[in-house]
Amino acid sequence: MSAATASPRTEAAARVRLLVLDVDGVLTDGRLYYGARGEALKVFHVRDGLGLKLLAAAGVTVAVISGRRSNMTGRRCRELGVRHLVQGVDDKLAAFHRLRGRLGVAAGACACVGDDVPDVPLMREVGLSFAVADAHPQARSAAHVITQLPGGKGAVREVCDFLLEARRHAAVTK
Amino acid sequence: MSAATASPRTEAAARVRLLVLDVDGVLTDGRLYYGARGEALKVFHVRDGLGLKLLAAAGVTVAVISGRRSNMTGRRCRELGVRHLVQGVDDKLAAFHRLRGRLGVAAGACACVGDDVPDVPLMREVGLSFAVADAHPQARSAAHVITQLPGGKGAVREVCDFLLEARRHAAVTK
Amino acid sequence: MSAATASPRTEAAARVRLLVLDVDGVLTDGRLYYGARGEALKVFHVRDGLGLKLLAAAGVTVAVISGRRSNMTGRRCRELGVRHLVQGVDDKLAAFHRLRGRLGVAAGACACVGDDVPDVPLMREVGLSFAVADAHPQARSAAHVITQLPGGKGAVREVCDFLLEARRHAAVTK
Amino acid sequence: MSAATASPRTEAAARVRLLVLDVDGVLTDGRLYYGARGEALKVFHVRDGLGLKLLAAAGVTVAVISGRRSNMTGRRCRELGVRHLVQGVDDKLAAFHRLRGRLGVAAGACACVGDDVPDVPLMREVGLSFAVADAHPQARSAAHVITQLPGGKGAVREVCDFLLEARRHAAVTK
Repeated sequence: MSAATASPRTEAAARVRLLVLDVDGVLTDGRLYYGARGEALKVFHVRDGLGLKLLAAAGVTVAVISGRRSNMTGRRCRELGVRHLVQGVDDKLAAFHRLRGRLGVAAGACACVGDDVPDVPLMREVGLSFAVADAHPQARSAAHVITQLPGGKGAVREVCDFLLEARRHAAVTK
Repeated sequence: MSAATASPRTEAAARVRLLVLDVDGVLTDGRLYYGARGEALKVFHVRDGLGLKLLAAAGVTVAVISGRRSNMTGRRCRELGVRHLVQGVDDKLAAFHRLRGRLGVAAGACACVGDDVPDVPLMREVGLSFAVADAHPQARSAAHVITQLPGGKGAVREVCDFLLEARRHAAVTK
Repeated sequence: MSAATASPRTEAAARVRLLVLDVDGVLTDGRLYYGARGEALKVFHVRDGLGLKLLAAAGVTVAVISGRRSNMTGRRCRELGVRHLVQGVDDKLAAFHRLRGRLGVAAGACACVGDDVPDVPLMREVGLSFAVADAHPQARSAAHVITQLPGGKGAVREVCDFLLEARRHAAVTK
Repeated sequence: MSAATASPRTEAAARVRLLVLDVDGVLTDGRLYYGARGEALKVFHVRDGLGLKLLAAAGVTVAVISGRRSNMTGRRCRELGVRHLVQGVDDKLAAFHRLRGRLGVAAGACACVGDDVPDVPLMREVGLSFAVADAHPQARSAAHVITQLPGGKGAVREVCDFLLEARRHAAVTK
């Protein structure tokens, strides 16, 4: 198959060098588990984790930018080898530009996954944006691709598979 | 679009100055997580939280009236800036009238969200009442509007979006 | 409406004086939450709880017979005013006969709700048996009535509403 | 019914002497519950547990091979009488061959249940392989049988029922 037959989305996916993820609603299903002293648990998905490891092994940098702060997110990121974790930011777009500037990656070579209105400015800036299946309507409208699975139940794995498949396709057709 | 074309529900929504929420089954999906010493967790939804913040920023007061008592509800309300929290009440209607009297808001300028029979008297009193998608049949029958999403999974966000959209619409058509 | 038009199931329901419930899969959705020291949480549903309180207020005795043992079940039963709680029994049928003998209730005036094979002998003995929507096929086959909602998500409330409605109907037609 | 009418899958099922299970995504629904100090809970299903006990009582050995490590898995296995538990292995196929060698069972007399890519080599080696309903597409493609229920919600019980039914059928037709 020649490069000419690849869809623009597959081509954008093949160029991605940095994937930026939201936490609540994307890496989780959006539920916040409160104990008597505040948030007590965060619930991630095992199949998302494998996708992120495979993506990193293929040379794509993974970053997490979250509006909230949680030790649980830090634990999960360390376990997955995600070193770029920014928590507690109101302006995700500014945090994104600081991060990609430090890493020297153009916005067009970045992808992101979001689920709600605060993710929309970032979704509009990157080369390829994903919304999870159960995202807020405004996030779904802003996305290039909507996953089939909802957040916290494999949506991120779907994104990883999409990016990996596009890279394989691009390598074959080079 | 002129005010004449707005539906009665949109008009009622635009008048809402106080939104009253139930907790279990509305802000949560109705599950009660028991540990060895009683209720140990309450599970809220991140997208509901953003809706409540946006609604408060638009000038609508948010109150929570719950039949049960839980530290977790207190934590979540503080985090969201919800200052009007009444817990452990059997008669939600009486608690509502005390609250709206103190705030000086007419019942017709109030909205509420419920999921079960104890919410019905309050649902019949306010200007605009919502039942979550998975509410008890008697609560669904009593509601002006039934959300598309179930409790604890974004139903409250849907209500917030509905109220905010109506306010924007009313502002434009004034 | 005359009694002659009531279905046999409604008539059986109106005669029920004792409702026997299983815990895991019936009052919960069957999930067992393990921490490092064994089962750490049990997850009940708020709308089931209200149904059980209304049923008790209408004069029906509620009992819980479980094959497992858990402090969480004890807490939930105390909160709901369920005084007849038998845990850790292999032979639910024997436990049932001891209980109904002590209470002086005929098997035909008892109902039960089950979700799996160990509940089947009891389901065959009572006047009216229910299986939750997601019960094991053998429990569904043995049931007089299958609820629309799955265990832990309102199935028990459906049973309570069914029994209460039948009692109201019978009172009217007496 | 004569043995000639049994499907090849039923015949393979009747020969199974060892069932190998993955944990996350198979015995659980794939969710990883993180507290501040790492994984805090694992959520198993009560109806899976009964299936595994019935299968062991029928003479089939049950083993668990997991890529992760967790005290919670150890607790659950002890409770179910599963003595063959291997945790924290990267190469599940090698772990499988060590285990079946020690037990003296041929690969063709083994079954396994998987949900993701790391399970595929093992799924290709055994006499009968199952994927849970919500498995990764590559695991579904590699499986002889796909369960109707997703992981952690009764998929393993379905597998147990399938194996038990095949054994009964084979016993009758001998």
